[in-house]
Amino acid sequence: MDDWIEVDYAFPAGVDARRQAEIIAVGQTAGTWDERFRHRETALRAHLAELVRIGEGPAGGHLATIRFPRSNTDHGLGSLLTMIFGKYSLAGQAKVMNLRLPADLGQPVRYGLQGIRERLGNPQRPLVMAIFKPALGLSAADHAAILAEVAAAGLDIIKDDEILPNLPGAPTLERWRACRPVIAARRELTGQDLLYAVNLSGNAREALDLARQLVAEGANALLLNVLAYGYPLLEALVADPEIAVPIFAHPALAGAWCGVPDHGFSYASVLGTLMAYGGADAVLYPAHYGSLPFAEADEWAIVQQLRARGVAPVPSAGVHPGMVGRILDDYGEAVILNAGTGIMDHPQGPATGVLAFREAIARWQNQELLDPAKLPEGPLRAAIAKWGQG
Amino acid sequence: MDDWIEVDYAFPAGVDARRQAEIIAVGQTAGTWDERFRHRETALRAHLAELVRIGEGPAGGHLATIRFPRSNTDHGLGSLLTMIFGKYSLAGQAKVMNLRLPADLGQPVRYGLQGIRERLGNPQRPLVMAIFKPALGLSAADHAAILAEVAAAGLDIIKDDEILPNLPGAPTLERWRACRPVIAARRELTGQDLLYAVNLSGNAREALDLARQLVAEGANALLLNVLAYGYPLLEALVADPEIAVPIFAHPALAGAWCGVPDHGFSYASVLGTLMAYGGADAVLYPAHYGSLPFAEADEWAIVQQLRARGVAPVPSAGVHPGMVGRILDDYGEAVILNAGTGIMDHPQGPATGVLAFREAIARWQNQELLDPAKLPEGPLRAAIAKWGQG
Repeated sequence: MDDWIEVDYAFPAGVDARRQAEIIAVGQTAGTWDERFRHRETALRAHLAELVRIGEGPAGGHLATIRFPRSNTDHGLGSLLTMIFGKYSLAGQAKVMNLRLPADLGQPVRYGLQGIRERLGNPQRPLVMAIFKPALGLSAADHAAILAEVAAAGLDIIKDDEILPNLPGAPTLERWRACRPVIAARRELTGQDLLYAVNLSGNAREALDLARQLVAEGANALLLNVLAYGYPLLEALVADPEIAVPIFAHPALAGAWCGVPDHGFSYASVLGTLMAYGGADAVLYPAHYGSLPFAEADEWAIVQQLRARGVAPVPSAGVHPGMVGRILDDYGEAVILNAGTGIMDHPQGPATGVLAFREAIARWQNQELLDPAKLPEGPLRAAIAKWGQG
Repeated sequence: MDDWIEVDYAFPAGVDARRQAEIIAVGQTAGTWDERFRHRETALRAHLAELVRIGEGPAGGHLATIRFPRSNTDHGLGSLLTMIFGKYSLAGQAKVMNLRLPADLGQPVRYGLQGIRERLGNPQRPLVMAIFKPALGLSAADHAAILAEVAAAGLDIIKDDEILPNLPGAPTLERWRACRPVIAARRELTGQDLLYAVNLSGNAREALDLARQLVAEGANALLLNVLAYGYPLLEALVADPEIAVPIFAHPALAGAWCGVPDHGFSYASVLGTLMAYGGADAVLYPAHYGSLPFAEADEWAIVQQLRARGVAPVPSAGVHPGMVGRILDDYGEAVILNAGTGIMDHPQGPATGVLAFREAIARWQNQELLDPAKLPEGPLRAAIAKWGQG
């Protein structure tokens, strides 16, 4: 298996799946050749892919499994993507459903959920992550002031909004420099670290340079919009021994790759398998409980792919304290709960928003039912009054 | 206009386009805020986008134009993509149809068709480009032997197949080193240069390093699978003064972004606008004449975007000599004709394949009709006998 890359392609009803699979197996590999290349026959044949099986697919269509020689790639995700769906993506309706990859393809996961927990002093409970809001228009000092509030309330992780790049009003390095003493002060006070996943931007070289500079100045986590910047940039960050901090992957643009039934990629392959093989330590994706229209089946398929490599699942978008019980019933403790407005817009402010999450987690751990009528006054009750429950 | 980024979004029939446009204008920018941020009101408001107009769109839907402040981006394409469609791509059916960008956003086009011609001794005719085939399984020496054949026949440009990464059997640097003397010999003999667009691969840092090393060793063009590796990698190559050679952009994976009517991106935005603003010098895309099912309207929309920035259009996929007259009737002389098998699989070999293209170009320039019955024996006649005409 480790010499092979297996891909399941779904073809819609009405498409001759066998014919298309053969086009992929030949056209996306060595192609055809004539007698001029007889002397290279062995080498050429060794690069051909083969159709392994063909069966029923979703909605009356077919699912074809093709096995590619691993040796057609340079073991990175850029060449993998080009091989499995590069030119063929232009050839008609087809969807990459599943990828089965050699364990050592791409990059290893360096930290994952386990490593993130270790950096936070090893709490075994679900972790709580916030997002700086508003997304744009704050100064570096504003960021530090917000961070001070949530840090005091026991937050584990915070991240930039994904749309905040390196802007003159709050340059990325200055945001980090302003926030660094807040994190140091909490560590001093409580012994507990707090990770700040700083958003990378710029062209690929600038993003790599920025990552090194941030880490050199003490940054303890990074955020990357992997689909806007490319899996090969994620791989380069992970491969860099100077960038020894967990990397959080954001799903921005994933809908453009995965949002339709018969074309492109499955969410499980893009936000699950490829993120995990690119070396991401934690991956955000829409929670089906939340504010985006995301299918439960897609969510669990992503989680399965991430957990298989130890990557932290981060269900996101519209997560609020009243939803925590339900999420934890499904995920257990191996999860990062990520909320933007669900923390920042708590009626009593961001610090109380964090406390509401922690209260909800503690009640779930103690198996206390969350009957809103019986909840004592406090952070969680106020959150549920605003956002509801479940 | 230069302070603004305008985006046209198509929403399918049945979607409340005005409501969705407002979600984009607020949710993809500063979001909402409360009284705690009154002191930042001016800064926050300055980051909001606005709905400019809403009108009829394709297939009974609507087209909404949203104007974003340029200052929400770092002037690069990674932050641009995240802003215009990042999280929103997960929110429902919508398609980015057109982008109107400030002229100095992204990267300037350094060479374009004009610069590529200059490097080739300034021929004003259509240029002829070939692709090394078979795509995988050849040694560096095989590449050099193929190149020697087509170079002698007057080829202008050759490129690696996009699926050929840095493989042990023919490492990228060795391919270049083997081909370099062939190019030097032709320059010596004829005074004419030949560009070899060498395919980049690896993680983002490896690809940047490989590009610098190739150029340091004399490589005179590069190929990048921009969608598999990320526009920010293209931008980094273009921004690098050490990488002073034309960059050819390949459309691999574009179908996954653009292949369905109601979702993702238009081909014009992905293969036209974004490639041109990323600084690509030449962009390949499927010719509607060719072997891939590509819409004529998409092709011309791409060409318009490329030519507006001086980028060379490279219609591709299934191009053969019998098609040249028709392509040139449509494109005129400002085009690069790109053929893989249409050159390499000519019945009399690759060199004759190049001659067939040159013959077809010369006949078109002399306004000689291509009645196959009246064609003299020779390269073009043999090509048309194999592949037909038109």
